[in-house]
Amino acid sequence: MYELGVVHRNIQRADADITDKLAAFGTSTVHEAMGRVGLMAPVMRPIYAGAQVSGTAVTVLLQPGDNWMLHVAAEQIRPGDVVVAAVTAACTDGFFGELLATSFKARGARALVIDGGCRDVRALTAMAFPVWSRAISAKGTVKATLGSVNVPIVCAGALVYPGDAIVADDDGVVCVPRSMAASTLAAAAKREANEADKRARLASGVLGLDMYRMREPLAAAGLRYVD
Amino acid sequence: MYELGVVHRNIQRADADITDKLAAFGTSTVHEAMGRVGLMAPVMRPIYAGAQVSGTAVTVLLQPGDNWMLHVAAEQIRPGDVVVAAVTAACTDGFFGELLATSFKARGARALVIDGGCRDVRALTAMAFPVWSRAISAKGTVKATLGSVNVPIVCAGALVYPGDAIVADDDGVVCVPRSMAASTLAAAAKREANEADKRARLASGVLGLDMYRMREPLAAAGLRYVD
Amino acid sequence: MYELGVVHRNIQRADADITDKLAAFGTSTVHEAMGRVGLMAPVMRPIYAGAQVSGTAVTVLLQPGDNWMLHVAAEQIRPGDVVVAAVTAACTDGFFGELLATSFKARGARALVIDGGCRDVRALTAMAFPVWSRAISAKGTVKATLGSVNVPIVCAGALVYPGDAIVADDDGVVCVPRSMAASTLAAAAKREANEADKRARLASGVLGLDMYRMREPLAAAGLRYVD
Amino acid sequence: MYELGVVHRNIQRADADITDKLAAFGTSTVHEAMGRVGLMAPVMRPIYAGAQVSGTAVTVLLQPGDNWMLHVAAEQIRPGDVVVAAVTAACTDGFFGELLATSFKARGARALVIDGGCRDVRALTAMAFPVWSRAISAKGTVKATLGSVNVPIVCAGALVYPGDAIVADDDGVVCVPRSMAASTLAAAAKREANEADKRARLASGVLGLDMYRMREPLAAAGLRYVD
Amino acid sequence: MYELGVVHRNIQRADADITDKLAAFGTSTVHEAMGRVGLMAPVMRPIYAGAQVSGTAVTVLLQPGDNWMLHVAAEQIRPGDVVVAAVTAACTDGFFGELLATSFKARGARALVIDGGCRDVRALTAMAFPVWSRAISAKGTVKATLGSVNVPIVCAGALVYPGDAIVADDDGVVCVPRSMAASTLAAAAKREANEADKRARLASGVLGLDMYRMREPLAAAGLRYVD
Amino acid sequence: MYELGVVHRNIQRADADITDKLAAFGTSTVHEAMGRVGLMAPVMRPIYAGAQVSGTAVTVLLQPGDNWMLHVAAEQIRPGDVVVAAVTAACTDGFFGELLATSFKARGARALVIDGGCRDVRALTAMAFPVWSRAISAKGTVKATLGSVNVPIVCAGALVYPGDAIVADDDGVVCVPRSMAASTLAAAAKREANEADKRARLASGVLGLDMYRMREPLAAAGLRYVD
Repeated sequence: MYELGVVHRNIQRADADITDKLAAFGTSTVHEAMGRVGLMAPVMRPIYAGAQVSGTAVTVLLQPGDNWMLHVAAEQIRPGDVVVAAVTAACTDGFFGELLATSFKARGARALVIDGGCRDVRALTAMAFPVWSRAISAKGTVKATLGSVNVPIVCAGALVYPGDAIVADDDGVVCVPRSMAASTLAAAAKREANEADKRARLASGVLGLDMYRMREPLAAAGLRYVD
Repeated sequence: MYELGVVHRNIQRADADITDKLAAFGTSTVHEAMGRVGLMAPVMRPIYAGAQVSGTAVTVLLQPGDNWMLHVAAEQIRPGDVVVAAVTAACTDGFFGELLATSFKARGARALVIDGGCRDVRALTAMAFPVWSRAISAKGTVKATLGSVNVPIVCAGALVYPGDAIVADDDGVVCVPRSMAASTLAAAAKREANEADKRARLASGVLGLDMYRMREPLAAAGLRYVD
Repeated sequence: MYELGVVHRNIQRADADITDKLAAFGTSTVHEAMGRVGLMAPVMRPIYAGAQVSGTAVTVLLQPGDNWMLHVAAEQIRPGDVVVAAVTAACTDGFFGELLATSFKARGARALVIDGGCRDVRALTAMAFPVWSRAISAKGTVKATLGSVNVPIVCAGALVYPGDAIVADDDGVVCVPRSMAASTLAAAAKREANEADKRARLASGVLGLDMYRMREPLAAAGLRYVD
Repeated sequence: MYELGVVHRNIQRADADITDKLAAFGTSTVHEAMGRVGLMAPVMRPIYAGAQVSGTAVTVLLQPGDNWMLHVAAEQIRPGDVVVAAVTAACTDGFFGELLATSFKARGARALVIDGGCRDVRALTAMAFPVWSRAISAKGTVKATLGSVNVPIVCAGALVYPGDAIVADDDGVVCVPRSMAASTLAAAAKREANEADKRARLASGVLGLDMYRMREPLAAAGLRYVD
Repeated sequence: MYELGVVHRNIQRADADITDKLAAFGTSTVHEAMGRVGLMAPVMRPIYAGAQVSGTAVTVLLQPGDNWMLHVAAEQIRPGDVVVAAVTAACTDGFFGELLATSFKARGARALVIDGGCRDVRALTAMAFPVWSRAISAKGTVKATLGSVNVPIVCAGALVYPGDAIVADDDGVVCVPRSMAASTLAAAAKREANEADKRARLASGVLGLDMYRMREPLAAAGLRYVD
Repeated sequence: MYELGVVHRNIQRADADITDKLAAFGTSTVHEAMGRVGLMAPVMRPIYAGAQVSGTAVTVLLQPGDNWMLHVAAEQIRPGDVVVAAVTAACTDGFFGELLATSFKARGARALVIDGGCRDVRALTAMAFPVWSRAISAKGTVKATLGSVNVPIVCAGALVYPGDAIVADDDGVVCVPRSMAASTLAAAAKREANEADKRARLASGVLGLDMYRMREPLAAAGLRYVD
């Protein structure tokens, strides 16, 4: 956040087993399981539909119009990581494209989440390297000013520490702090366990009003029915 | 609009036959047939491409960050309805997801139009329940404050009364007041009847300038050609 | 830019051979080849994914809510052109739809780029006529006020002269001035020639840090590594 | 809303005495008094600080880039009116300036509320004619296409019927339906009566937690204090 | 526009006498006098109310997050100039503050127009150096990458050549091409000459409907009055 | 950030002497002194011009449309504090007005910074209680759902810990972490010491090009001058 010109090489990553299991639950369930916090702003969209990933965060703090630190970050990637990049000021330039994606993928990265722009989206789609970004832009960037790698960052309104678990899908991106990964996984699994039954009942025509016993609190809140 | 805490159970729906036929014309033709009014703002986008529906409106007025009234609305849905939801203040939270969609579908709803956010878009796509929304967001909501069901609402700039006909496709969402449904259908059919012929002529190279006899009014308006 | 009510019939188009070859390089490479200028703002998005075109610009200056000049422009289209339309003030109305696309296609146009709205996107997708626009909107327009055809325009922040080469793909839209088309093609080809080798090296695990010899300048800029 | 090309000459205005008294309470109190509905979106801002007005609505439906109907509306203004203008599609052009303000003022209008742009703001400030608008823009408009006067409109998300009471100040703009004007005034007066006492107590250091008896419901909701 | 790394030292400025006289007419009148073109987007706002200036353009093309070229531009300023700056990609950083303003003022500049951010607005207000900008931001910038000075630029949607006449006031910013300065001044003067009379008539209660003879064309367009 | 339903009563505040001295330097200088980090997004604007404050942060995490936790926060305020409030999802409702300001002021708060809306701005201006907010809105809020007080929050993109030093003025809002307050003050003082001399030299006509010795690096970067 506040350190510029620094690369932290040793970071503590969230447990790989736990992190890997979060993907299947998706962001909406994981975000609920955390108590409805940790979500990035909805301006973060996937460059193609259908990707659903989780991984441990390698964080990058970029300067506007400058992607130098993404190259620095590549060296810090380990298999199972998701690179999460913020910019010190709002900027939609295309910081990331096919060549960097090739490098990130070779290092084992599963995805990029960037509070800025992305380009070469056709190529990225073809190589199945998912990116969640604020914009798509062909605008190129320079390599002139230092940012940082593996410092705490704020990405699209969410605080991300290096090593946190990241979950991303068509609904958005959520950051699970490393210390909450296990409890979040448990809570997500518990939520999901109930959902199949709820889905079946709702599909059969049972109303949420009855299934969730809402009629009484609604009446208590003063809801009136008019014929 | 101005009533909170009320559910109107008996609403007059636009004629089902007429409403059902509007879908095939699509929003652009229907909007033209109405005299170029009734359209929601273009920020309303489908969560997946290709859906094209019409139906009668069950309206919902939500509070920001609170989806309680969508559960209340489910009970008011009849087969052929489209649920249309507004929020008392701008809010992109994910008010609606897979479970509510399962319930709405079981009740016979054809789609949701919501001036807010939607989540579980992959599941909604898989179950072919179309949603037009202002945003996609995993952000969950609470159930704490009353809104209303089947009161007049303003959704993305369009006034919608319960029972109005709603038409939605890849171009957006249009609301056809119940009293205008028949005349709009007639006007849409008339427009469409002309379009095939126009399309053929334009495809053969005839210019709109000639087909629509624009050269004279353009000259009268002062258009100059420079070689 | 400053002329209203004028249609320039004779414009000098960028060389067709050169222009046609630009499409394959895509906007990101072409924009880099130009020195990172000439790009339209990223708000310009294709109505469907995967289109990649280049062509010579027929420019149109529209008035808000009025598509009269698109009909006038149709007559000026020659095979290989891309129509580029600006509006004198921000407006997301659906200036363009299936009928105009039929006419434009019959005249030989390859695409439309419009700093406004587009409609009938399902039909346009079906007929494979690509459009890059600021918005999708069913809102119809009138034919009442003159603009111009083939005058210099500013489209989404880019200056476009009639006859300039336009390149558009999933990453956005770039305008190559006619006088720069040949040198840009050469520079793009040179860039691309290097990319296959770079891609292979990065895919094999070589780091950009080493391949681009960044370690020294990074150290000179003060980058610190912390364990 | 749905009628174009119509001017309703006879409208029923909210009671003048009641409407006039609403101004002193301001939009925040009036909006609360209505049950937290009826507010326009916060994008509507006054062109200068400090104006606080109420009046009866003369409504105008404009076409984008066209201010013809504002001239038509001038004739329908009676002393004590506030003109409220919507546009059939988003448009920030400067529909209104010094000359129209001179005319509106001469007719007895107290203000303009416009979901579009305004210009000549220095002159309007000098003549103390307040305007609440979405934008300030020097962009001129044409007089070519019909809209309507005194039809129901949606202005910045609020539904406004001709004759409704409008209240506007530095906090925004609220529309009070004619039928609710009296009850809203009474509720606003009641709210205000309590405020002086509350203000004094809070100024003396009493906490809202105690004054509003919030400690128990907060504890019931699960609030924990950590030292 | 397309040249980076270049400073043009000799530019042809619009006639000083003509340019100086444009300020008094203001942007709305000048924009009308030009035929309703040449206006920057309304996102360009003055940092304080009441400034009204005109001057000849020294243009600057900046890189995002980098204000190096503003220092280069200072040397090219002559008394009576207005500096107009664009950025190669959207960026709201505070490129300009008190020190640069001191330098610009010492060189004779009358104002800055910047399609980016500005800072030190309290100091700039105190020293009466007006700035029109897209944003106010304390975010500092670097000096690392070349742009250009006195090349054609697109600033907030308007094309500006070095030496063009710039007019800016509370309504926005308009660019008058050098070749149009004289005719625009004449047209503005003519418009203004009529305005005093019109204003007096409207103030006396005459309707624009009558003064502009609109009743007949309105009827011809189909306007209906309903009692 | 991730804790809901918690109030931390004992927080470590930045040193009062140091924090108090930061105000005089203003946000632009403080932000530079920190190395160009820590700034909130420029959407955060003061409700009136001219306020310039610093203080220690009491943080609040709100739910959309719900201001309950501001009442809870009031009790935690100590003289010299600035309340900084974030919302779990984007929301422009008027969370704060005259009554809360009266209470906050009585408790010794110097200002509110809120990533949401504010109302009663005329009264707040009259009582000289400054607020920096994302929006001004009369929209009222409920008191139904728990957030937190004195947990780490992300406000307009900046990470704020309870007790951090906040500096706010017409240029925006910057957060200085508690641990950096002393060094930032020293760096700001050093910057300012140089500014008076620089200002005088620039005012006398010396160019930044010479004063900052930029000519050589510009030439090295390839800047060309054309006559």
